[in-house]
Amino acid sequence: MSAPIRYYYDLMSQPSRALFIIFRLSKMPFEDCVVALRNGEHLTEDFKKEINRFQRVPCIHDNGYKLAESVAILRYLSAKGKIPEHLYPKYFVDQSRVDEFLEWQHMSLRLTCAMYFRTVWLEPLLTGRTPSEAKIETFRMQMERNLDVVEEVWLEGKDFLTGSSLTVADIFAACEIEQTRMADYDVRIKYPKIRAWLKRVRQSCNPYYDVAHEFVYKISGTGPQAKL
Amino acid sequence: MSAPIRYYYDLMSQPSRALFIIFRLSKMPFEDCVVALRNGEHLTEDFKKEINRFQRVPCIHDNGYKLAESVAILRYLSAKGKIPEHLYPKYFVDQSRVDEFLEWQHMSLRLTCAMYFRTVWLEPLLTGRTPSEAKIETFRMQMERNLDVVEEVWLEGKDFLTGSSLTVADIFAACEIEQTRMADYDVRIKYPKIRAWLKRVRQSCNPYYDVAHEFVYKISGTGPQAKL
Repeated sequence: MSAPIRYYYDLMSQPSRALFIIFRLSKMPFEDCVVALRNGEHLTEDFKKEINRFQRVPCIHDNGYKLAESVAILRYLSAKGKIPEHLYPKYFVDQSRVDEFLEWQHMSLRLTCAMYFRTVWLEPLLTGRTPSEAKIETFRMQMERNLDVVEEVWLEGKDFLTGSSLTVADIFAACEIEQTRMADYDVRIKYPKIRAWLKRVRQSCNPYYDVAHEFVYKISGTGPQAKL
Repeated sequence: MSAPIRYYYDLMSQPSRALFIIFRLSKMPFEDCVVALRNGEHLTEDFKKEINRFQRVPCIHDNGYKLAESVAILRYLSAKGKIPEHLYPKYFVDQSRVDEFLEWQHMSLRLTCAMYFRTVWLEPLLTGRTPSEAKIETFRMQMERNLDVVEEVWLEGKDFLTGSSLTVADIFAACEIEQTRMADYDVRIKYPKIRAWLKRVRQSCNPYYDVAHEFVYKISGTGPQAKL
């Protein structure tokens, strides 16, 4: 029997949470390798040499094979039969619709949610400086342009982003959107479809969704139920 | 015989050029559907309804099936047997290394090259305002942090990004980097490995590389050979 996948992650990282939930839902055993980003554990030369040459999480080691990038990891493990077909389809047409979301999100939903979180929560914490209202407004507008697309295009006439049931696309998306809670943004106020969809995603993924988001809930002071 | 893929693209768009080169190298017939972004042809309601709900290029229609996002399109066509294995590997381990690059590039190489191009070339053209030196410097540094990773990590000890021969990873990367020529950035000055690699990519992809970059060469006033 081969050794389990070594999974390097930090639940403060959105794609780390997404893969954590996906692995748990898939009942895939993995060796827990937590990397404390807040302590800069990923910034050492040892980490670069031994763990991940890009000095980021998430990443995996599979019997010596090192792979980074959450979507590439997901596809690799799917090809190895570790991810059930209902979460990441094997039929190429259905798979392409999930891929379309996974590729779309990088420079749109993920980038702008992350920039909002960074501007409103992370940078003030690190620098002690409060961002200007104008700056927050700019990043909020950029994020909401993409939340509009989730609400109006991706969720148009569907319970989940790519169809009638949960796939990895929903899990990746929810983890990005949940991150903005910590910056005190409540996506549910302006976006009724996102609100209902987030509830469905959480229900479909629990108990792992709440485990993965424990720290997010704690920081945001809201708790899992508060805004759903 | 089924109808050829309808390919909607504009050679001013980096991923449009990448897919154009990949399709030509793959000898894949396609119906040429040029979309003039400069005229806002993608911004109409008709385009949104009939062509691509995200109002972007590239995208394809395959016998009525509409798909956006260049990397998702590539995988879909690979699954249909339209892309040769040497360009996008079928063996899942080799494929995961190419996927790792394709996922890495979005928020790193692609984002920062595009932002540099936008700041230095596109915005001044659209607004008539010249960006400050400090702003250009910020975007140049962000881009060079990622060019450093291409030079020192991806190209370390290899002729191409993911191994000893050309794959789609190289084509996507080269098209992003070539875009910065128009903003008068010469990547070859600081990056000797990128310089030599770009030359290999161009040679491996010609005559299609030069066809795809004709407009880039024209705008930058350099010509294909000038900087290689």
